[in-house]
Amino acid sequence: MKVYLSGEIHTDWRKEIMDGCAGLDVSFDGPVTDHDASDDCGVTILGAEDSKFWHDHKGAKLNAIRTRRGIEQADVVVVRFGEKYKQWNAAFDAGQAAALGKALIVLHGPDHQHALKEVDAAALAVAETPLQVVQLLRYVLTGQLPA
Amino acid sequence: MKVYLSGEIHTDWRKEIMDGCAGLDVSFDGPVTDHDASDDCGVTILGAEDSKFWHDHKGAKLNAIRTRRGIEQADVVVVRFGEKYKQWNAAFDAGQAAALGKALIVLHGPDHQHALKEVDAAALAVAETPLQVVQLLRYVLTGQLPA
Amino acid sequence: MKVYLSGEIHTDWRKEIMDGCAGLDVSFDGPVTDHDASDDCGVTILGAEDSKFWHDHKGAKLNAIRTRRGIEQADVVVVRFGEKYKQWNAAFDAGQAAALGKALIVLHGPDHQHALKEVDAAALAVAETPLQVVQLLRYVLTGQLPA
Amino acid sequence: MKVYLSGEIHTDWRKEIMDGCAGLDVSFDGPVTDHDASDDCGVTILGAEDSKFWHDHKGAKLNAIRTRRGIEQADVVVVRFGEKYKQWNAAFDAGQAAALGKALIVLHGPDHQHALKEVDAAALAVAETPLQVVQLLRYVLTGQLPA
Amino acid sequence: MKVYLSGEIHTDWRKEIMDGCAGLDVSFDGPVTDHDASDDCGVTILGAEDSKFWHDHKGAKLNAIRTRRGIEQADVVVVRFGEKYKQWNAAFDAGQAAALGKALIVLHGPDHQHALKEVDAAALAVAETPLQVVQLLRYVLTGQLPA
Amino acid sequence: MKVYLSGEIHTDWRKEIMDGCAGLDVSFDGPVTDHDASDDCGVTILGAEDSKFWHDHKGAKLNAIRTRRGIEQADVVVVRFGEKYKQWNAAFDAGQAAALGKALIVLHGPDHQHALKEVDAAALAVAETPLQVVQLLRYVLTGQLPA
Amino acid sequence: MKVYLSGEIHTDWRKEIMDGCAGLDVSFDGPVTDHDASDDCGVTILGAEDSKFWHDHKGAKLNAIRTRRGIEQADVVVVRFGEKYKQWNAAFDAGQAAALGKALIVLHGPDHQHALKEVDAAALAVAETPLQVVQLLRYVLTGQLPA
Amino acid sequence: MKVYLSGEIHTDWRKEIMDGCAGLDVSFDGPVTDHDASDDCGVTILGAEDSKFWHDHKGAKLNAIRTRRGIEQADVVVVRFGEKYKQWNAAFDAGQAAALGKALIVLHGPDHQHALKEVDAAALAVAETPLQVVQLLRYVLTGQLPA
Repeated sequence: MKVYLSGEIHTDWRKEIMDGCAGLDVSFDGPVTDHDASDDCGVTILGAEDSKFWHDHKGAKLNAIRTRRGIEQADVVVVRFGEKYKQWNAAFDAGQAAALGKALIVLHGPDHQHALKEVDAAALAVAETPLQVVQLLRYVLTGQLPA
Repeated sequence: MKVYLSGEIHTDWRKEIMDGCAGLDVSFDGPVTDHDASDDCGVTILGAEDSKFWHDHKGAKLNAIRTRRGIEQADVVVVRFGEKYKQWNAAFDAGQAAALGKALIVLHGPDHQHALKEVDAAALAVAETPLQVVQLLRYVLTGQLPA
Repeated sequence: MKVYLSGEIHTDWRKEIMDGCAGLDVSFDGPVTDHDASDDCGVTILGAEDSKFWHDHKGAKLNAIRTRRGIEQADVVVVRFGEKYKQWNAAFDAGQAAALGKALIVLHGPDHQHALKEVDAAALAVAETPLQVVQLLRYVLTGQLPA
Repeated sequence: MKVYLSGEIHTDWRKEIMDGCAGLDVSFDGPVTDHDASDDCGVTILGAEDSKFWHDHKGAKLNAIRTRRGIEQADVVVVRFGEKYKQWNAAFDAGQAAALGKALIVLHGPDHQHALKEVDAAALAVAETPLQVVQLLRYVLTGQLPA
Repeated sequence: MKVYLSGEIHTDWRKEIMDGCAGLDVSFDGPVTDHDASDDCGVTILGAEDSKFWHDHKGAKLNAIRTRRGIEQADVVVVRFGEKYKQWNAAFDAGQAAALGKALIVLHGPDHQHALKEVDAAALAVAETPLQVVQLLRYVLTGQLPA
Repeated sequence: MKVYLSGEIHTDWRKEIMDGCAGLDVSFDGPVTDHDASDDCGVTILGAEDSKFWHDHKGAKLNAIRTRRGIEQADVVVVRFGEKYKQWNAAFDAGQAAALGKALIVLHGPDHQHALKEVDAAALAVAETPLQVVQLLRYVLTGQLPA
Repeated sequence: MKVYLSGEIHTDWRKEIMDGCAGLDVSFDGPVTDHDASDDCGVTILGAEDSKFWHDHKGAKLNAIRTRRGIEQADVVVVRFGEKYKQWNAAFDAGQAAALGKALIVLHGPDHQHALKEVDAAALAVAETPLQVVQLLRYVLTGQLPA
Repeated sequence: MKVYLSGEIHTDWRKEIMDGCAGLDVSFDGPVTDHDASDDCGVTILGAEDSKFWHDHKGAKLNAIRTRRGIEQADVVVVRFGEKYKQWNAAFDAGQAAALGKALIVLHGPDHQHALKEVDAAALAVAETPLQVVQLLRYVLTGQLPA
């Protein structure tokens, strides 16, 4: 099973999930999580821009080569919304996943519940912790519930 | 041409665009913009829920009957991000529009530029004012630029 | 909006919904609800069969010309499960609707809740009465909630 | 060839088919067949619900992560209807398989013939025993008929 | 309902069906049935060819502009096999219709039964006379069986 | 029938075809053919750019809102290559049309034959004059060959 | 590259092509070529039928489990028309391949040229001998022309 | 990741990119780059033609067996426009890639900027050198920017 881990990049939730799934027949993909590299990749490789808009635009498009493919090839897309920032790219990824018919799992704390209701409504599971994601991936693949 | 107007519901930007496009061969669609009706539609029609999560869930799914169809049938999806709120549903709609290959127009002020770079990168136009959207829809349909 | 009314054919729930939606911009489609005609159409038109299996087979395929098209062209598919019979064709229609990405509304009484959980899980609304379906179609089309 | 085995979970028909296909180039998938785990997976992992509806809903969605993927990736979907229960999820799976253009094989006894006529009409084979399914998979893959 | 009438062009079966469906909400399409025009259209419009292969090739491609669109836009494709000729284009049209998920009706006499078994197996109805096609289209659209 | 007229914008070939098709059931679409408007639309509406690349980029994207929709909605795409300029956008449109399964008609003089062989190989007709396009559209729609 | 070899089953043309492609990165698939097994598979496995129509129908559907999958998974579909028989199933396979956007290669002698013009018009190559098919598969995969 | 390298065949840019990507998990595909073989493959294998048009036509179709498959199976399509020739096949490939939703990278010098604006507008990156393509593929796959 191919799982794409989208969204928040400031905590180690991806590692928690990947470690927790050790031994399962699952492969993980996700965006570049080095914040500076992700922001500057476009101008570093393709040349500087005077305008911040085009600086960002070049980088965002280059990152899209990776992220679109990752979402398109995934069976399951997990999108995590953290405590801070706008995180519109996370919701944007969730929208793509939903429109492509991917199994969508949303991961967020209870205080975002109302603001994320449209995203949650398109999901097959809404989790609060990475451990829950591990448990449900394990169940989906093996039929085993946590003891 | 069918245009879906997604996103912010607290200003009259939809009316500005629709009025400005008077006389053009274009029809508009969008979500229910009555905030209370949109929040409570699920429980009002299908029965009350004790939990806020399921209260919201029922409503969000009922609204999705309208919004998914609107996006799927549109030629152009305009998504506006306002000054306030999380607006994850706007970014979620943009993601759906992008994955469905719709022409995406994003409408936001300059202070959201960095946070919206992934959404903007998937768009065919990034506008700051409803008037610009009117002008570009007029151009797309008639070839006429503003005087 | 195009609405396909699938399932139970022994009560007048279709008429209730159609009457209740008078004045709305919605068109309705559904299967042939004359039970005898539906059972015997194949052999009546294309010739008798000795075997009950092929008698039914010819009829079911002929009916599929109508029902598949109705589901494929619908925006919304309402599937009603009544009190009696196996009604596997209703669940089969629901499965088709779900796989085609249609907005699915399931209509059934509370005693079928557990047996229909997989179908309900794919739906955007689960209603108990035709009046609720009328109210939610009215809301989806006009944004008006029942007084 | 990928074969998804859907439907009845109270007899060992899946094992019969898998054992009978030993040596063939075929892989099998199917739902979680532990009835209690399947019913309670949602609340066990994601938290308890007061309402039976949402208890079931959470579980059914979680199971859908596995079943939808299994059906989508299959070449052939075998759906078995047993003697008991409503089995609407089996018919729902068959509807999904049909709409996705999968080769559908239905497996049921003669007393369900009339009630399953719409499902049978969409199938490429209607079998009564697991052995027949084994024989036809063997024929499809190797061209060998049973001696 | 849109019906495409493919195949044999030497009898007036298309007229029989169209006349018989007078008053029904159905529109018909089909290939150019003027045999000489159909054979020579390519070279007449686009210039002569020395080779018979390219003479035919130009014409067949030009006719495909009409026939592919007709099949793609149809709800129902009726394919008639007459008594004479190879009629590979009829079987080719049937294959396209099947792959596109169209409702396929095959019309042929009993002596072609064995040779057409693969085509018939993909059809929702196999008729022997144009009158049967009229009757089944009438049933599909109105639910009325012949008296 | 919907026909999209793509490519060269410096002669009146579009008008020739549209005039020649008077009386036929065909509607035409195409790009904005005002060269200056087409080049400058982006910056005129959405704001000036220092860099020629982004000046062009904004305009090309805005024009794509019109051209992609036109090609996607067409039954037939006619692409004309004139005597001058690179005309890569014409070949780009032809590639889109081919990938979308549109009926492609290429219109060019004999000196471009070798350079356009890949495009011609994907076409259902290769014409040299607008009159030929008129004649073949008339034939496709009515079965009538030129006298 | 996956190549499906459809059509005539009375000569060893499939073996010629497979032998000739030894050493190339290509895998072959095709129908069951044992004529008796292919005709009787349905009734042998699923039970006898009194009517020849249903005898053939059961077999044709069972064979379709193999042939549809083979065509859908192929990159290239080679369809051979021999000297004898109606061979409508070959043309039917070609129609499916064309509608699915497969690269179609038609293999037939010169006397079938006119009758196969619509099939040939949808093909990327029309060959007369298995050796030519070998040579073109070799060229397509390696860029090497025959010495 | 699968990368298709389309366009100009007279310099060794493909080798530069492939060498530069040594060690990355990427596979490359592209057209036959032997100019004479590519031009004459059709007539060499399938028989000579008197007319230059059909000579080219046969070859272009045969090459399309390879190029269409390569583009359809790619994750990323890189299209290079060189200094000379019309290169309409490169723009045609880019159009196919865009319509199929592939990640498109365009590679050209600054003097082609205006003529390629429509192609560039559909791309996720516009590079000037093969080294930049190497760097961005490396970034997309590993997140590593050039030192």
